Amino acid sequence: MLPEPEVDEIELPAVLFALSDPFRLAIVSALRDGGERPSGELAGDTPKSTHSHHLRTLREAGVTRTRQVGTRCMISLRADALHARFPGLLDAVLTATPVTA
Amino acid sequence: MLPEPEVDEIELPAVLFALSDPFRLAIVSALRDGGERPSGELAGDTPKSTHSHHLRTLREAGVTRTRQVGTRCMISLRADALHARFPGLLDAVLTATPVTA
Repeated sequence: MLPEPEVDEIELPAVLFALSDPFRLAIVSALRDGGERPSGELAGDTPKSTHSHHLRTLREAGVTRTRQVGTRCMISLRADALHARFPGLLDAVLTATPVTA
Repeated sequence: MLPEPEVDEIELPAVLFALSDPFRLAIVSALRDGGERPSGELAGDTPKSTHSHHLRTLREAGVTRTRQVGTRCMISLRADALHARFPGLLDAVLTATPVTA
């Protein structure tokens, strides 16, 4: 698993910043069912370096978890951690975000 | 009144970005009772140019309203607009933000 903040280290400004970008919101929306998705499936047409940057921003803020499985990165939403730390925030953001593939 | 987006022009990424800074969160928190406050009262120790920048970021995102009264700027939260556009978001952010002066 790549480095990520503990639940009580997750900071509101960092989470809001991580969510303040349409591409990162689309990634979060694509993970809303709670499952894990391979990194590549979440990239859409985004160039690889940009996509990696977005994934890193989300992970370092505590929004997503990145698990390495062989050569693949599997991404999931840290919905429980976010809910514990900032009740209602992720739900409100997802409600306001169109469902993506 | 200084320029601000109409309710249906308020965009989620811009709102989240405006809220992603501790100083701007403190301003929003100080306005949480729904009243208007003079700009100067919200500045704390922030240098004037930085404070003006934060107020502009909040206003242009649709988070706050700035009303000019003589030589003073009166600031208030656009809570109704935010609630109409993104139900639950402002409440979740305020719940997660310490009460400030």
